[in-house]
Amino acid sequence: MTAANPFYTPELQGPYELYSLGRFELEEGGVFDDLQLAVSTFGTLNVVKDNAILIVTWFSGTHQAWADSYIGEGRALDPEKYFIIVVNQIGNGLSTSPNNIGGELAGPAFPKVRISDDVRAQRQLLEQEWGITKLFAVVGGSMGAQQTWEWAVRYPDFVERAAALAGTAQNTPHDFLFTNTLIDAITSDPGFQEGHYTSHTEVEAGLRRHAEIWSVMGFCTDFWKTEFWRTIAPEGSDWTFEEFSDNFLGTLFASMDPNVLLTMAWKWQRADVARNTDGDLAAALGRVTARFLDMPISTDMFFPPADAAAEVELCPAAELKVIDSICGHFGLFAFERSYLEQVDDNLRELFAS
Amino acid sequence: MTAANPFYTPELQGPYELYSLGRFELEEGGVFDDLQLAVSTFGTLNVVKDNAILIVTWFSGTHQAWADSYIGEGRALDPEKYFIIVVNQIGNGLSTSPNNIGGELAGPAFPKVRISDDVRAQRQLLEQEWGITKLFAVVGGSMGAQQTWEWAVRYPDFVERAAALAGTAQNTPHDFLFTNTLIDAITSDPGFQEGHYTSHTEVEAGLRRHAEIWSVMGFCTDFWKTEFWRTIAPEGSDWTFEEFSDNFLGTLFASMDPNVLLTMAWKWQRADVARNTDGDLAAALGRVTARFLDMPISTDMFFPPADAAAEVELCPAAELKVIDSICGHFGLFAFERSYLEQVDDNLRELFAS
Repeated sequence: MTAANPFYTPELQGPYELYSLGRFELEEGGVFDDLQLAVSTFGTLNVVKDNAILIVTWFSGTHQAWADSYIGEGRALDPEKYFIIVVNQIGNGLSTSPNNIGGELAGPAFPKVRISDDVRAQRQLLEQEWGITKLFAVVGGSMGAQQTWEWAVRYPDFVERAAALAGTAQNTPHDFLFTNTLIDAITSDPGFQEGHYTSHTEVEAGLRRHAEIWSVMGFCTDFWKTEFWRTIAPEGSDWTFEEFSDNFLGTLFASMDPNVLLTMAWKWQRADVARNTDGDLAAALGRVTARFLDMPISTDMFFPPADAAAEVELCPAAELKVIDSICGHFGLFAFERSYLEQVDDNLRELFAS
Repeated sequence: MTAANPFYTPELQGPYELYSLGRFELEEGGVFDDLQLAVSTFGTLNVVKDNAILIVTWFSGTHQAWADSYIGEGRALDPEKYFIIVVNQIGNGLSTSPNNIGGELAGPAFPKVRISDDVRAQRQLLEQEWGITKLFAVVGGSMGAQQTWEWAVRYPDFVERAAALAGTAQNTPHDFLFTNTLIDAITSDPGFQEGHYTSHTEVEAGLRRHAEIWSVMGFCTDFWKTEFWRTIAPEGSDWTFEEFSDNFLGTLFASMDPNVLLTMAWKWQRADVARNTDGDLAAALGRVTARFLDMPISTDMFFPPADAAAEVELCPAAELKVIDSICGHFGLFAFERSYLEQVDDNLRELFAS
């Protein structure tokens, strides 16, 4: 039995509701008796149900990042105009996950989950709870971008617009190898015990090494060289860059659940819309009918603009707009006002089209 | 007592000679009773001693990489024209290192060595053995580039030309954090035993995790996506990209000595020519009088062209020429004919000036 981890509570992540989807069969063969999705909504669904925006979450993230930084009155994602549904991905610690399922599928026995499982579950949720059969837009970053692409390829008739930030439709081998380093940093910790730790604190060393790799791949050289990180560090702190890395990312990831992270990492590695078309990526991307806005971040080390551009080339419905940021992939955390302005401007344009 | 590691022998690294420099005091306070440099020379020093080219080595590398791929008749580094001296860096396993020093300074007790120690030792070697007081050129890649920059800043009168590949004069914090991940992959292995392992094979898991990080940061996304690696894999092998990573880099690094790698990693992290000028990088780079050719590799993930360009901006004597490669930092391994052609063309132009 794993001790409860306070990280995965409304107190830390902000309010959400759990929706039951009942029995749910996963692509890889696992079955949940009752899949629960943790959802946070903003705004009101209009009568004709044409103002629903689905937001999907990234690795290690929850609905909170979107609620805190991206959604708000006067913003592109404006709850005054749209009914915004943020769905936590399966395995992220809030929706059905290794840390909360209990019973036989708990911890390291949690089944393999794919991006496509998330997207199927999200569709079921939308239809079942609100009778939504068409989305004004799907929006997501990183693993959320993977889900966004899957939505646009799998259910083209369901998606009118889509916006992907810092992610690709088909994960690259480079990205796969990067994720391996994250996985192995955790699983190599003797405290991990093949996933049978009794508290995530037993895996703190591995989680901190995992965070250390993020400090390299999640940011970029200019983030560190210009000391942009000082704008994020607590006021008055006299941290060095190593201390910032350890105190900020290290402490953040050390508070998470290893099996939760590993569930998401496995899923991330295998994201691939071409699974819908027998491995033909061009055929998959050719199915997209949504107006698709693809927004890689200029300094992203593992979802670099070139990888996004190569996919947009294959997708007639997609447009590429590179977001300028000094924060690498973690530009997603919205440390920069200029980043949010670019994203909002692009989303507004997409939503007006 | 550590078991002898066959990786660090002439049988595997090619022939070299050991030169004794006698008692040698290190910047950080350590003292070698008799510093030995492992050296391989090519060609003949002319009578006026103005045809000597010093080549310095990179992390985990030896003189072998230069002998095998860069030096040869008809090449820019032509032993028919030049007296080429390849000096293995201190701590690389062939020159005085944790694995070969024996006695009180063996293994984890090996003292901290800086890039500037290497450069001072190399100068002593050149003067003592051959009476060389001016170099036609200094050439190095990666940590060799760090030594090359140090040469040009520390001993401007000694260096007529310099060529740095894939490295910087002042290590960046991003690079420092990257190197931390390499270090921690090794030291976190329980078999490392704080450096007191009896054979490097006890640290194989850590060395392979270290290699896994290299497969991400040492190459780049296009290297993996285009499957360029198939041109390196043994003919007829049916490896996946993960197997290539594990069989190629994993096996290579697993054959090395952990304390040797850690000695170099510490040195790499702290390379900084501004130590010669009280921390003023512009002042340091302003001291360079050599014609300095700076050649970052286009796809390098941790010594990216932008970091090199920023230094060239501060160095009136330097010129930037980005080398186009699909192999990231490991372009240095010279897998591509086009890479070697660019390097040779640039070196020829430098040597003709």
